[in-house]
Amino acid sequence: MDIKEKIRVIDGFPREGISFKDITTLTKDGAAFKYTIDEMVKNLKGKDIDLVVGPEARGFIIGAPIAYALNVGFVPVRKPGKLPAETNRIKYELEYGSNELEIHKDAIKAGQKVAIVDDLLATGGTILAVAKLIEGLGGKVETIDFIIELTDLKGRKKLSGYNVNSLIQYNV
Amino acid sequence: MDIKEKIRVIDGFPREGISFKDITTLTKDGAAFKYTIDEMVKNLKGKDIDLVVGPEARGFIIGAPIAYALNVGFVPVRKPGKLPAETNRIKYELEYGSNELEIHKDAIKAGQKVAIVDDLLATGGTILAVAKLIEGLGGKVETIDFIIELTDLKGRKKLSGYNVNSLIQYNV
Repeated sequence: MDIKEKIRVIDGFPREGISFKDITTLTKDGAAFKYTIDEMVKNLKGKDIDLVVGPEARGFIIGAPIAYALNVGFVPVRKPGKLPAETNRIKYELEYGSNELEIHKDAIKAGQKVAIVDDLLATGGTILAVAKLIEGLGGKVETIDFIIELTDLKGRKKLSGYNVNSLIQYNV
Repeated sequence: MDIKEKIRVIDGFPREGISFKDITTLTKDGAAFKYTIDEMVKNLKGKDIDLVVGPEARGFIIGAPIAYALNVGFVPVRKPGKLPAETNRIKYELEYGSNELEIHKDAIKAGQKVAIVDDLLATGGTILAVAKLIEGLGGKVETIDFIIELTDLKGRKKLSGYNVNSLIQYNV
């Protein structure tokens, strides 16, 4: 199946100069959604993953079914104030301004093998922050898997040292 | 399996008087997460569902794996400004203030049979708004399924006329 055909590209969202990759046209198509999750699961099987971690909010749409298919747990990384128990927080820089993310302190046990998943790799800043949150709890980031990679933004370089995979690629 | 044992109750979050039901302790447990999704899927199989709709953000964690397991599409309902294409928006009243939600105009075709899923039924205001968004596109809300129901808040009454199901119940 050609997943790219199922993705809607919207120029100028959320601001001028951005060519947004909309996965909702893929997820609403049952066969395409199942195919996409199964392709990602293929790459994760055999890696002895204990947990899948996904960042709010599109990471939940991809990460939760992957965790279900692998029969492992799913851990959400969220914006500040959303997780109810004790958290660790990280602040990281964006192109415009900064952002913060949180993880529950008891979400991961030291030594657990973790797959980070999200819909799209752009500059990699968010995912690097997620990796640091996981490592701060003693988790081991075994693999980082995306549906889409925007290759010109060089997120893969920012995530060097990690095992990074994507199903499809665009320049930007 | 006793799902209730896997849920963490946190008193005073997000504000005094609320006894928050934290599903992250359930989702991080692979066996409990799979059991929970499979129990919800059991109730949905045979209902000839075309699409699963879940509201941001915990509805994504439950709805996406249910859609995957049913081999149907998943449609997110989101806070304003998050969906990139043309949307319909609904405003609804909360205990304190009001809230707005959006759905893509092309997310549902007239006549499609929809299951709404979310982690928790409280007063039912959010889910009633989701149902109206679906019906505004011509979709048919076949069933509304939750992991948790807070029975004293009478969300089931607000959703009367719909087929409402929950796996476990608390008073508040």
